[in-house]
Amino acid sequence: PVKRLVNTLSPAEIGNLLESLPPAKRQVVWGVVDPEDDGEVLVHVGDEVREDLLRAMDPDEIVAAAESLDIDDLADLLDDLPDTVIDELLRSMDRVDRERLEQMLTYDEDTAGRLMNPDVVTVRADVTVDVVLRYLRLRGELPEATDHLYVLSRRRQYQGRISLAQLLTADPAVAVNRLIDDEQPGIPADMPAPEVAERFANHDWVSAPVVDENNVLLGRITIDDVVDIIREQAEHQAMGAAGLDEDADLFAPVPRTTRRRAVWLGINLLTAFLASWVIGNFEGVLKQVVACAVLMPIVASMGGVAGTQVLTLMVRAMALGQVSASNAVLLLKREVLVALANGVLWACAVGGIALLVYRDAWLALAFGAAMVINLIAAAMSGVFLPLLLRRLGIDPALAGGVILTTVTDCCGFASFLGLSTLLLLR
Amino acid sequence: PVKRLVNTLSPAEIGNLLESLPPAKRQVVWGVVDPEDDGEVLVHVGDEVREDLLRAMDPDEIVAAAESLDIDDLADLLDDLPDTVIDELLRSMDRVDRERLEQMLTYDEDTAGRLMNPDVVTVRADVTVDVVLRYLRLRGELPEATDHLYVLSRRRQYQGRISLAQLLTADPAVAVNRLIDDEQPGIPADMPAPEVAERFANHDWVSAPVVDENNVLLGRITIDDVVDIIREQAEHQAMGAAGLDEDADLFAPVPRTTRRRAVWLGINLLTAFLASWVIGNFEGVLKQVVACAVLMPIVASMGGVAGTQVLTLMVRAMALGQVSASNAVLLLKREVLVALANGVLWACAVGGIALLVYRDAWLALAFGAAMVINLIAAAMSGVFLPLLLRRLGIDPALAGGVILTTVTDCCGFASFLGLSTLLLLR
Ligand SMILES: [Mg+2]
Ligand SMILES: [Mg+2]
Ligand SMILES: [Mg+2]
Ligand SMILES: [Mg+2]
Ligand SMILES: [Mg+2]
Ligand SMILES: [Mg+2]
Ligand SMILES: [Mg+2]
Ligand SMILES: [Mg+2]
Ligand SMILES: [Mg+2]
Ligand SMILES: [Mg+2]
Ligand SMILES: [Mg+2]
Ligand SMILES: [Mg+2]
Ligand SMILES: [Mg+2]
Repeated sequence: PVKRLVNTLSPAEIGNLLESLPPAKRQVVWGVVDPEDDGEVLVHVGDEVREDLLRAMDPDEIVAAAESLDIDDLADLLDDLPDTVIDELLRSMDRVDRERLEQMLTYDEDTAGRLMNPDVVTVRADVTVDVVLRYLRLRGELPEATDHLYVLSRRRQYQGRISLAQLLTADPAVAVNRLIDDEQPGIPADMPAPEVAERFANHDWVSAPVVDENNVLLGRITIDDVVDIIREQAEHQAMGAAGLDEDADLFAPVPRTTRRRAVWLGINLLTAFLASWVIGNFEGVLKQVVACAVLMPIVASMGGVAGTQVLTLMVRAMALGQVSASNAVLLLKREVLVALANGVLWACAVGGIALLVYRDAWLALAFGAAMVINLIAAAMSGVFLPLLLRRLGIDPALAGGVILTTVTDCCGFASFLGLSTLLLLR
Repeated sequence: PVKRLVNTLSPAEIGNLLESLPPAKRQVVWGVVDPEDDGEVLVHVGDEVREDLLRAMDPDEIVAAAESLDIDDLADLLDDLPDTVIDELLRSMDRVDRERLEQMLTYDEDTAGRLMNPDVVTVRADVTVDVVLRYLRLRGELPEATDHLYVLSRRRQYQGRISLAQLLTADPAVAVNRLIDDEQPGIPADMPAPEVAERFANHDWVSAPVVDENNVLLGRITIDDVVDIIREQAEHQAMGAAGLDEDADLFAPVPRTTRRRAVWLGINLLTAFLASWVIGNFEGVLKQVVACAVLMPIVASMGGVAGTQVLTLMVRAMALGQVSASNAVLLLKREVLVALANGVLWACAVGGIALLVYRDAWLALAFGAAMVINLIAAAMSGVFLPLLLRRLGIDPALAGGVILTTVTDCCGFASFLGLSTLLLLR
């Protein structure tokens, strides 16, 4: 019954199910998965769960699972397989496939060369549609998600594409070169995966040809793999911003998880001590005016919130390629103006409240002024920080938040306690 | 020169470019866009930029732009158009298209019924491949991203699909019903868009049929629109978590942006005042032990960081459908154990530092114990809060962070200052 249920699911759905199960149940379900699906399931789970699943298989099973995969998926899986299995796999492959696989592995992970599938249907420009139709009937089944055939020169250079729809609707006597669409350029094999995804999304492609530096066709990237990239990217950023690894097992052993989380907590502890050190410099005013201790987190937190908004906006605009030198200046101006306006607004509000509660005009003034200062500092950090991080080769989506709130915490505490010292301890 | 450059871009790329430009330049570029692309560009920009672009067009231009669109894109655009334009558009459409459009508009936004395109090529099961081939040649051009023809019964009920690849490779004498693939079920027209996207991703579909409650074929959803949904969803969550609207114009007028940001800052001010009120209840200990004011933000911030990790993990697992009643309990146990272990670890670290700096064992004890308490509270809130919010119909990805850090701030301040009062003011 479990078996039948599991095998109504697609490999991706089985992978998702396995990820959601604690280790004992996971092994039970993994045991009943149709061996035909084993390979595809392995491709669809996170690295850590994959290791877990591989541990439960004997080498023969692994070889069988890997053999059933498309070459692109196999290239993806390969570095997680035991060396003995890889050797056996390579021996069992025919020479053409082995050479194709080896060529793919010369490209970096997360580039077009690793995403492509070398299994492509190609035609020559000088034949008629009728010849192509007869060729296809002889050939039989086409690779998954084939929407176009690629037209190659004698030297296997990519010249353009012709869609299956055109082949079906065109006059069979027409020559292929009359129908060829040369508007889709080949994708260089070293193009990074995010850029490949961007192109697919911007041009509504279902598949795209990958070429080497001489425009020789190497393979074809299909939209299903691009969809996976887009989803993984979004997950990577959402998880990474919280210091989490999207490839981690939800049910990894507690000690392992503890260690991982400890790293992130340690980093954050350092930043918290920094803010705390800032506060420690103002013990004088804190001793004499307890209200300062009560109100200071408000200044810091408002700065953090305002800065995070600007940072989030910048990170997205930068990811979409919308930030240039000229509009960065404009964005900075706008954000500082917005921060000034909101600073004054909320300074009046919090200043008024402080005045009502503590009946101290100087305290209210310090509170309000610190709010304005911190919101402006937040806006400026929100614009500059991601630009700076990118220049340093650090992904602002991952590291930006921690650094930004450290800045706004320190600035918030320093400005409020500093102003309070000046105004209240005269 | 600008004109030529702009028109080498795809409509999606032009939309992206327009979004990145300040208003004056934006109008210049919009003016040189090929009128043929106007409609597609409007579909590809955020709501606010779209209004901006529409304001610069006269009614005739808008009607022309809208007429060039596929019906699914038109349905998407329609509610942003002026009423007079809508009237003229509907009058200019033929009866079939108008009825199709009106039917689509009966479905909720963000459901399959609004994503589909009614323009579908269908065949009957009892004909041969040869008949289909001749039909296609007579028909000419197929709709964009057509990878399958749909097989319908006499009553237009969806029975299965047949791929273009099969039509090209099969023996022309074979009947369609021998080739029909009935493994892809029709998508109900009221299925929410995120679920549609999930199915596409899990099954590597390029297109999928949409059916009504009687399994009558209504239209077809294509992967290019699904890719847009997946990207928009990710943006919506990333921006929404910071209280931002992904449809806002990067260069909206400062007063408008100020007002929007003010709302979010106001919400956060309330939560900050709540934490501040908690601190205010412990003025006694703050007056006497200034170190409490210096150290208290550390406890609060570590709780916020640890809780955000658990929340992020839960939000992702919930979005993937990986959280059930049974494993939620297990996740809670694991997270509490991890929090306990990390709590003890970091309690020793920070307690030791406090001891070194302030030479006060009771202070160090209060600090360390509060750290353990707050990390455990953080783990529990991280698990429970998203489950609770989902039950209340609130998206935990959007609201979770603000609420969680309010909990960990209040709990952190209360536990540290409370313990300090007990241990230090005896
Ligand atoms: Mg198995
Ligand atoms: Mg790997
Ligand atoms: Mg698109
Ligand atoms: Mg696949
Ligand atoms: Mg593939
Ligand atoms: Mg990773
Ligand atoms: Mg125009
Ligand atoms: Mg957009
Ligand atoms: Mg709309
Ligand atoms: Mg897939
Ligand atoms: Mg489109
Ligand atoms: Mg469409
Ligand atoms: Mg919105």
